[in-house]
Formats: sequence, structure tokens, C-alpha cells
Amino acid sequence: MKQDNIYPVATMPRRKREELLGQRALMIWFTGLSGSGKSTVALALERELHERGRICRVLDGDNIRSGINNNLGFSTEDRMENIRRIAEVAKLFVDTGVITVAAFISPTCSMRELARDIIGADDFFEVYVSTPIEVCEQRDVKGLYKKARAGLIKEFTGVNSAFEPPRNPSLVIDTSSMSLDRCVEVIMQAIGERIEKR
Amino acid sequence: MKQDNIYPVATMPRRKREELLGQRALMIWFTGLSGSGKSTVALALERELHERGRICRVLDGDNIRSGINNNLGFSTEDRMENIRRIAEVAKLFVDTGVITVAAFISPTCSMRELARDIIGADDFFEVYVSTPIEVCEQRDVKGLYKKARAGLIKEFTGVNSAFEPPRNPSLVIDTSSMSLDRCVEVIMQAIGERIEKR
Repeated sequence: MKQDNIYPVATMPRRKREELLGQRALMIWFTGLSGSGKSTVALALERELHERGRICRVLDGDNIRSGINNNLGFSTEDRMENIRRIAEVAKLFVDTGVITVAAFISPTCSMRELARDIIGADDFFEVYVSTPIEVCEQRDVKGLYKKARAGLIKEFTGVNSAFEPPRNPSLVIDTSSMSLDRCVEVIMQAIGERIEKR
Repeated sequence: MKQDNIYPVATMPRRKREELLGQRALMIWFTGLSGSGKSTVALALERELHERGRICRVLDGDNIRSGINNNLGFSTEDRMENIRRIAEVAKLFVDTGVITVAAFISPTCSMRELARDIIGADDFFEVYVSTPIEVCEQRDVKGLYKKARAGLIKEFTGVNSAFEPPRNPSLVIDTSSMSLDRCVEVIMQAIGERIEKR
């Protein structure tokens, strides 16, 4: 028996992985109404980061609600659990050295505080996508506002459920007054130094 | 209003990220008894991969049970949900281009089939850590075998709950007859080409 095999081997520290990747990890958390442009900006940001040689992971409804959170509904409890799991997954990505981008309505301060607590305030960069509801509703990409106005969706954020704007976001962008390219540019400028290797 | 902002931006394909990282992603799933050496080998493998410039993520009890799965117990349902969430997280890492290593007892064929189904058979490399139970129990690093024998832990794998050996694992390693270095070497040889960039 090789007793030496049971001795613990140390976990790889985040910093070592960041060195390997030539970048520093950061959590970029988008919050805003449905249709505000969170996912679009998140994906455009990912593309820009990738072009600059940065490794990035976008977490959004497409890969979260169909995967890790496919057994959650829309009750208050399930919405918190939804955010909790997203934050825990994000934390693992940040610890891996990956620039991690989450795009979820996350309508309440308590939800975003939960995410911040799990991920750690130092790594949490909150982007409030402040596009006015009139614009979001006019876009209505998924037809959800129409359904909510018709009473077919209960507790739809902005219609019959409140959105609490962040009190102190790291950045505010409004996709109704800024082009997509400009949104990405503003975010890149804001996070610039924080993702540079040490 | 900038209507162009709501047009969908494509998700970054895995292949693009693999190109950026200069590697191909793979899921390496360790299964075996408590004390068999899964985590130790996983962490040693991570260290070796890192030294070769590969980016790797180990998922094990330390970062999963205390994080994403901190609200799960040990009922049959919760054990399946534990594995399901691990597999969903792993799938996101593999899609990010990261070599992903999971070290969990995952005692039943159905658990490992669930993981394989979620992650995809092509990316699933199963390593059976076949260290005999006598050796695991003699090590008893966490004192769990002693507790299980004393009746303090119900359904402890190998004591009062069955371990179903994989029928067709990608690789078998026994840490009671192989040194840690040799275990890592054998795995590296086996996965060698599969993690090379295309």
C-alpha cells in the first residue's frame, strides 16, 4: 500500500490560473428589465474580450434555465435559488481565472446582494442596464410583455412585479440611447485595469 | 431607440475558446470509494496539466458540497440531484474549453449515466479508482469508515450501501498498487491526444 497516495495535494490557487491565462478574473453582473439588452450586451462583450485574447464565460437564461436550473420554477423561493446557483457557478468560474458575465433580470436588491456575498464584493462588477421600460416593452422580443399585460404571466418584472434599481452600481448603461458598440466600449474602459494580469 | 441593439449576438462557440486556450476540453470523471484516492489523483492531475500550460478545473466535495450543493442532503433523490448539478456545472466548463475533473464517489451506474448523458459521451472520460475497500478503510482519512461501522452513518458506500463498479470505464487505476506520480502519468498518456488542440 502506498501510504503517500493519501496525503492531500493542494488545490491550485486562482492566481496561478490567472497567470497561466494572462488575465485577472472578474464577475460582471448585468441586471435590468426583460428586453433591456442584458444578454445582447453580454454576448457582444464576450466577443470583444475573446478578440482581445481573454477567456470569458457568459451565463444567461439560455444555458442556465435549460441546465443547472431546469428544475426551478418562478416562485419567490425558486427565484432566489436560481440566483444562488448562478452565483455559485460563477464563483467557480472566477476562481478558475475566467472573466464571468451573468445576464439575469435579478430584480431585487436582496438577490444581487446574495450574488455579491457568494462571489465576493472585490470581484463583483455590477452593470445596471437601465433601458426604460417603454423601450423594453416596445421591443418585446420574446412577446412576454404582451402576455404579462394580458394577465398570462404573474409577477412579471416591470408589469406586475417591481424592479429595484441598484443603489450603487459599478456602471449604468442604457441601450436605448447608446449603440451596442458603445455599450461594449464603455464597459471595456471601466473594467480595463481590473482584468489585466498582475 | 437603437433597434439594432436587440438583435441577437451569437454565443461564442466552444471551438473558438479551445483555439484561444490552445487545448481541447474534456471531462475526466473519477469514480470510486471514499478514501480510494479520487481527489488526491484529481488534484495531482490538475497540477500536472497546469505545469503543461493546460487550464483545468477540479470539482470535488470541497468546492461543491460547500457551494452549489450546500442545500442537498444524502437521500437517494438528493444524491442524484447532487450528481446532476455537478454534471451541469461541468458541462459549462467543458463548453468553456476547460479540462474538467470531477472527483465524487458516484456509486451507481445510473448516476454516472446521468452525468454522461448531460455532458455528452464524446467528452466523458471515466476513470475508475479501484483501490480495494480494505485499503480505503485502513486509510480512513476522514474517519468515515469507523463511523459507518459504528452505525453512525447510514448508507455509507462500501459498508452498508453498494458500489457498482463501472462496466466499461475509460481507465482503471488502483492507488494501492501505483504511486501517485504513476497514476497521473497513466492518465496523461490516456488523455494525451484528446486534449491536444485540433
